[in-house]
Parts: sequence; C-alpha cells; structure tokens
Amino acid sequence: MSKTVALYDTTMRDGAQTEGISLSVEDKLQIFAKLDELAIPYVEGGWPASNPKELEFFERAKRLKLKHSVLTAFGSTRKANTPVGKDPQVKSLLDVETRVVTIFGKSWDLHVREVFRVPLEENLRMITETVAFLKKHGVEVMYDAEHFFDGYRENPEYALKTLETAAESGASTLILCDTNGGSLPSFVTKVVQAVRERLNTPLGIHCHNDSELAVANSVAAVEAGIVQVQGCINGYGERCGNANLCSIIPVLQVKMGYACIPADRLKHLTEVSHVVAEVCNMRPDDHQPFVGSSAFAHKGGVHIHAVLKSSSTYEHVDPVVVGNRQRLLISEMGGKTTIQARAKALKLDPEADPEKAKSFLQTVQELENKGYHFEAAEGSLELLMRRAYKHFKGSFELQKFSVLVEKAPDGSLTSQATIKVKVDGKVEHRVAEGDGPVNALDTALRKALKEFYPSVGQMHLVDFKVRVLDSQAGTAARVRVLIQSQDQEKSWWTMGVSENIIEASWQALVDSVEYKLLKDRNK
Amino acid sequence: MSKTVALYDTTMRDGAQTEGISLSVEDKLQIFAKLDELAIPYVEGGWPASNPKELEFFERAKRLKLKHSVLTAFGSTRKANTPVGKDPQVKSLLDVETRVVTIFGKSWDLHVREVFRVPLEENLRMITETVAFLKKHGVEVMYDAEHFFDGYRENPEYALKTLETAAESGASTLILCDTNGGSLPSFVTKVVQAVRERLNTPLGIHCHNDSELAVANSVAAVEAGIVQVQGCINGYGERCGNANLCSIIPVLQVKMGYACIPADRLKHLTEVSHVVAEVCNMRPDDHQPFVGSSAFAHKGGVHIHAVLKSSSTYEHVDPVVVGNRQRLLISEMGGKTTIQARAKALKLDPEADPEKAKSFLQTVQELENKGYHFEAAEGSLELLMRRAYKHFKGSFELQKFSVLVEKAPDGSLTSQATIKVKVDGKVEHRVAEGDGPVNALDTALRKALKEFYPSVGQMHLVDFKVRVLDSQAGTAARVRVLIQSQDQEKSWWTMGVSENIIEASWQALVDSVEYKLLKDRNK
Repeated sequence: MSKTVALYDTTMRDGAQTEGISLSVEDKLQIFAKLDELAIPYVEGGWPASNPKELEFFERAKRLKLKHSVLTAFGSTRKANTPVGKDPQVKSLLDVETRVVTIFGKSWDLHVREVFRVPLEENLRMITETVAFLKKHGVEVMYDAEHFFDGYRENPEYALKTLETAAESGASTLILCDTNGGSLPSFVTKVVQAVRERLNTPLGIHCHNDSELAVANSVAAVEAGIVQVQGCINGYGERCGNANLCSIIPVLQVKMGYACIPADRLKHLTEVSHVVAEVCNMRPDDHQPFVGSSAFAHKGGVHIHAVLKSSSTYEHVDPVVVGNRQRLLISEMGGKTTIQARAKALKLDPEADPEKAKSFLQTVQELENKGYHFEAAEGSLELLMRRAYKHFKGSFELQKFSVLVEKAPDGSLTSQATIKVKVDGKVEHRVAEGDGPVNALDTALRKALKEFYPSVGQMHLVDFKVRVLDSQAGTAARVRVLIQSQDQEKSWWTMGVSENIIEASWQALVDSVEYKLLKDRNK
Repeated sequence: MSKTVALYDTTMRDGAQTEGISLSVEDKLQIFAKLDELAIPYVEGGWPASNPKELEFFERAKRLKLKHSVLTAFGSTRKANTPVGKDPQVKSLLDVETRVVTIFGKSWDLHVREVFRVPLEENLRMITETVAFLKKHGVEVMYDAEHFFDGYRENPEYALKTLETAAESGASTLILCDTNGGSLPSFVTKVVQAVRERLNTPLGIHCHNDSELAVANSVAAVEAGIVQVQGCINGYGERCGNANLCSIIPVLQVKMGYACIPADRLKHLTEVSHVVAEVCNMRPDDHQPFVGSSAFAHKGGVHIHAVLKSSSTYEHVDPVVVGNRQRLLISEMGGKTTIQARAKALKLDPEADPEKAKSFLQTVQELENKGYHFEAAEGSLELLMRRAYKHFKGSFELQKFSVLVEKAPDGSLTSQATIKVKVDGKVEHRVAEGDGPVNALDTALRKALKEFYPSVGQMHLVDFKVRVLDSQAGTAARVRVLIQSQDQEKSWWTMGVSENIIEASWQALVDSVEYKLLKDRNK
C-alpha cells in the first residue's frame, strides 16, 4: 500500500518574506509554472489583501492552464470585534476565486493577549466565524494554527480548543505551525500524537528553520501521522527560512516511500531549485542537500578512489534521481582516474586514454602549483580540458584593454575601461564606465561581444572572490579571482590567477563568457 | 543534575574538505585559537600523514598556550596486510605528540569488500592492532566507526563486531558516523539504542548533512544517550557539510539543558562563526540559524508589530545569548557596555559616558548596515572609535590619485599609480609601478609618506581579502576589502567598503598606515 503526503508550497507567500527577495507578478507566474510542472498539489499564491500586486497575480494566474497544482489564497481570521462579512481582508479572499483558501489564526494565548489584546473567547469566535463564512461561500478552507507548538507548550488546552473550533466550523485540514522554528523533533512527535488523540481532522505541518530542524520536524510530523507538509523551494522564508521542500520531497519519497510527486517529476528537482533561485535573484547554495552543485562532489582522495569503485560508498542516493550529478573534484588530491572518468563523461575521449589523462594531469598540477584551484572553478577546468583535448576554439581574440581609476581632489571617483576585440576578422573597440574597474571592464567586454553573440546578454555575474596566494608579498602577491556567473539554466565558476587583480579578473571574465557560449552551443 | 555532552570540532580536518576551502597553516592556527576561546573540549587538527603542511601545523600548535581545548590528530587504521609498526601513516600519528588520537575504521562490510578488498576478519585485525598499538604508546584513542549507520542497516552483526573490537582493544570513545548523511533521526535513535544495549563504552556521533538532517540526527543521538558530538563551525564539510556546531551548541545548551561550553562563552558564538568564515574565505550565510545576520531580522509588518510588543512572539531564543542581535533594536545593552569598556581601556573616555557610547554604537550600526564588518577589522574599529571620541588627527591629507592598468597587444601588462598627498602644508606628488593596481597604489603612497614618516618602511601588507556584499549586482556590487599588515611587533586588520575595489583597497591602505603611525606614537 502506498503512503501519501500532500505537499503545499508557500514559496510565493512565506518564501517571499526572505530578506533580499522581492517578487514581481511576472516572477510569481514563472515560479508557479515551475511548481505546476513539478506537480506540487497545493501552491499558495499570496495574501490578496496585502497589496494590489497580489490581486493582479491571482487575476492572471486564473487564466493559466494548470496541469497539476491547485492555487490557494492566504489570509487571516477576521479583525477582532468586527462582523466577518464587513472585513475587507476576508472578503478579498473570495474575490480572487480560488478553490481553496488558507487562513491563519492564533493558537498561543500569549499572542491573543499581547498582540491582539482581546479576550481568549473572542479569538475563538474570530476563528469560527471566518471559517464558517468562507465555507458558506463555497471554498475549501485550510486552517493554519500559527504558533501552535509554542501555544501548546504554554497552554495546551487552549491551543487544542482553537483547533477544535476550526474543525467544527468546517476546516478541511488543520496545519500545525512551528512559526518561530524553536521546536525539537521529539516535541513535535509528542504534540502531533496528542492532537491526533483529540481530533480526527486531517493534519498538516508548517515549520521554520530557526533551529536548523525544519526538515527533521516535518519528517517527525509525517512519521506521527500528518498528511500535509508545507514548505518552500530552497528553504526560503523569513529569518532562517521555511522547511525546504527540495530536501523534504526526496527524503519522503526516496527514503521513506511516500508518494509526493509523480516519480518522473522528481528528476526535475535540481532544475526547479535553480530556476526558482534565479527568478528570486538569489545565489544558489552550492552545498544545498540533493540539489546543490557540491551535493555529490567528492574531494578527498580516499573518497574519490572509493566512489569510482562503488558510488554508494559515499553517496546516500543516486544523484540522477533528483536531476543532479556526481562530480569528481580535481585538486592536488585527485588523480588520473578522475580525469579519465571526466574526459569520458564530457565525450572528449571515449577510450579514456591513460596517456592523455596523465599529460592533462601534469598540466593541472603545474597550474595548481601556480595557484590555480580547479575544484573551485569547474567552468575554467572544463575549458582547460577541452583545450588540452583539442575540442575547443575560443570565440574571440583580445587585442588590448586599459583600465583607469581616478580619485579627484573633491573625492569623486571614476572608473573607465577600453577594450578592442576581434571576431572573424571584424574588430570592435569599445569604452565603458563602471562602478569599479572590474565592472567597467566587464561592461566594455559585453558591449563589444554582444555585437557578435547576443546571448551574452542573458548571463550575469553573481559573485566574485579574491584570494592572496603568497601573503609574504603583500599587495604584490599573486591573487586568485573566482567569478560565479548565472543564466536561467545554471551557474558556473571560472577563475584567473595573476599578480595583477585586473588581469586575474580578466581571465575569469573571459572564461565565464566562453563557458556560456560553449554551453549554448552544446545544447 | 546537569547533563553534559563533550563537543569535538573537526572544522580543520573534515571542514577543510569543503569545496572551495583551502587552509594554510596560518589559517588553521587562527581557527584553533578561536575554538580554544570558545572552550570546545576537543579540536581535531588534521591528518598528519596527508601532507607536510599538516606536520607544520601540529609542530606550531604544540607551542600554543591553550586554555581549554585538547588538540587531536586524525588518521586511519593500518594498511591491510601490513604490520602496524611498519605503517608510516600510523607512526606519524605518534610523531605529532597529541594526547588524543582519533582513528577511523570500516564498519560497513560493503566497504571492506569493495574498497579495501580484504576479508572481513582482516578488517577487524586492522582495527584491533591499530588501537592497541597507539594505546600502548600512551595516547588516548577515539574510534570513528565510518559508515556505521549504513553498515548497521545492511549487516548489523558485523557493524557491532567492529565496535566491540575497538572497545576491547582500548578505545575510550566509539563514534558512530553517518558518513554519507543518509540516515533519518528515527533510525539514528534505534541504532544508538541497539549499540547501547550491547556495549558500555561511551559513544559519540558524527553526522553529515546530505539529507538536511545532520543537526537533528545529532540531537536524536544525544537524546538516545550519546556523550560526544562531532561537527564543524558553520556546518562546513565535504558535499553538503558536517553537522553544524553553531546550531548544535545552542540547541543542546539553551533548549535541552546540556552543559557544552561555559555559559559566558556562548555569547561569542556569532563572532566565532564570522571569523571562521572570514579565515576560510567563505561568505557567511545570512540565513544561518542562531548566528546569521538575518536570523533575528524581522521583515513582515505583522511580525515587526508583534515583536515590538513582545519579542518572544517571533523569536525562539534571545539573540543576545548567542552573541547575535535583533535587527530592529536601536541600541542594545550588551553592545553599549562593550563600547564603554573599550573606550575606557583605550583611555578615550575614563568616565565611560553612556551617552557617548550610545552615539558611537549608532555610528557602528549605520556603517555595518552599509557592509562594514568591524569584528573582522580591529584596526579600523579602533581608528573609528578614536575619531568619534575626538582623539585622533589623520597623519596626511590625500589630494588625488590615479591608477592605470594596460594590457598591450603582445599580452604584456603594466600597472601605474600616481598620488598627491599633503603633510603640514608640504605636498608630495609621486608615481610608482606595481605588479597590480593595488600594489602600485600602495607603493606610491609609501614613497610619498616616507618623506615625512620613515617608520612606514617597517610595515608590510601580509594578506588581503575581498568579499562581494551584494551579489545581485555582479561586478557592480559593493565590495569589502580587508588588509592585514604587519611590522616587527604585531599584525592588524583594516577595512574599506566601496563599489570600487580600488577605492575600498585605498580606504583599507590608509587605515593600515594610520594605525601603524598611531601605534608608534602611543609606544
């Protein structure tokens, strides 16, 4: 018998509370399409009353042809001492015409007293009247019991009473929220069991990650009999984020045998994670479980050696199942075997010739002695490998560049770069200003290359790092620059090394663009 | 009765396996000093046999005056079919002269067969002989049972047998490792209970985060009776990282009532997290539980409203307990007291005026909102404080500078800086070339200042770091430059922040020189 858990995504509502995230209507429609592709059963679209953008989203979302997901609207119980039919916030939940509405209410007596400042009885009336009103108007009502675990800890009888009230008024599912993210899994288990002893209504769980336990608390709740799990893609959310659906889905489905999404959808998980990061304008977390680019990357010599013999020795699941892949990092520790395996994977050398691998390893080692650090810059490593295996031709030729930074007597700064490149015999000579010298150089390079390769406009740089390699030399030391670039599909790191930070940045910029163009050609 | 758990840090060994981290001996000494300050009982220094840098670290670490931490060396059981006394890897564990040695051995029959390719019996001999040999030479031996949970799942009898073998040979603690990070908390609980039924030896836990459950698995193990917890600062480690000590410590200590580190040390947790991130050249994770800068930051209107009424409404612990802060507070007592104490120590304000401290705290907070990060740059902080307390006059006045980098058609590079400064009405205008733009600027500045302050010649710059503060902006983002300078007496860090890397470097260079001159004046 297959066990089922209904997933409920709140990336567009609770996830949008992340510091640094601000979503337009277009952004939300793009995320929604991805979640529907992933076949997430419930997707929370937003809080209609919170701002006019939300209404526009619901209006446009209505016109989408959804394959799998049910869109839900989010709101709260009615205002204290106000007839429910006269509360515009509640009415707006009906205006957006979703089949399901989720409302949150207070379970913690502290909140009722200190925040609402109303009698405990009035809070119960707010719950019952709001649920009943919405239900009477034909929508399915899910009830989010905010702060349920904190409320239960301090006043279990009242917390349970709020749930009973919602259930008796017609809520279809009661979601227990660990709003402050402070609960431990053993406590979650105990509380879910206590609620199930009292109530028969289906239960859901909504966890925050303030104690780094959101995934564990969600899993504990499922083990204790919960049937709906709420969370966000990439664990986005206020403070430390919400429970991470990108971890919860494979844990429930692959490790625990629950049916969450159709089996053929699971291998889109890594892609969905990256697209959502891109739309939210967040840097992907390389070390994120299951979907991060380091999640199945092996560095230690002992590990690489073992993984090549049997991948389960250092991999808890097959990366292909979640759409990720194994990466063997080439560093001082990795060897010939790693290179042969990689040349084969890149189709550069189907025979996996050991002599070619040996000679390439020597190249890598010489460069690493000079300060290159290829495990941190996969993009540059792949380009180097393609060059060595004679499978690569550069997209342009640099003729010269200059960078000038000036600080004037009034303290004002200017940065300017000029660049001259040649593609197929045609020369482009461009100048650009920037916020700093690297930005000016980057801008001038793109200006020149866009004439030949318009897709350069799709990528942007999201991070760079600088490391001094030989500290004794002070500012004359060699530096390593790492640049991370991103487009709609993925992100990649490239690298440059030089005593001159501008030159090192230049090398990394060039590799970054070449990698993008290579990736597009190989699509 | 107070419950105790012994923490065991492996940031410098397992944490150094993180993709992107590469630690020098200096880096490791700096991390070790911080861990000792935090009073972590056991700190794993590295694997002596893995490379010569490790030996140098142990040699230099020996000379440190430790207050709290015991340094341990890490290695493996002897090679198959080799007398233990002839295995150089095992011998090197004694050469480094630590009081405790931790060795790992295989618990999973799959590994013994597929990776070692030796009979299961030989693996047991490798364990027993290595533990006994080290013990005979006077060190305490801790035994890491690699892949214990996977081994137990597939062949519990053999997995338990490996533990028994290690215990009977004299291991003081047996650490159960979830090496692949694939176990669920309920399974961890079950396995720990089974091991405790069989063995009386103290047990430890070592988890990886591949399922986003490393903290939960560690907590589950403690609840089941484990007495040692291994992990890394910031959850660094191969693939998705190791169990995060920055979350485990407050969960155990604040939420579960275990004694882990002295109560007065806990409030250094946020600082230690940030310093270790800086040393590792990793970007701090803003959303990291407990220590991240967003961990107690409130964005939603409903939340801010409630938090102002009662902070526990949306905060699961008091941020001050772990040295973090709520982002809404205008001033907080902890910060002000620290400032008063420091102003007194620097003889800037013998009365320790609270009003002055409050106003300075505000300045610091405003700058930190712009990306300054004073805990990483004590030199700049002291200068800022002296300026604010009107105890400082700059040594020179900049009139202008320019920096030019050119790459010629033949690929050759030149970097040139010009600078014009004024001291006591006298102007110096100098030009210099350098290996890069910052070096040229540094050289030109020294040339100009040496005319007035010959002691500038005694100092040199030993490290600089660059961090992007606002990745969305790519190469146009603001960057923070940290520069470490050194003379015969000491080293100091200074800082600059700007969208322009040359300007940020300039600010840090100026502070670096000013700090040197100040230090000399106050001698």
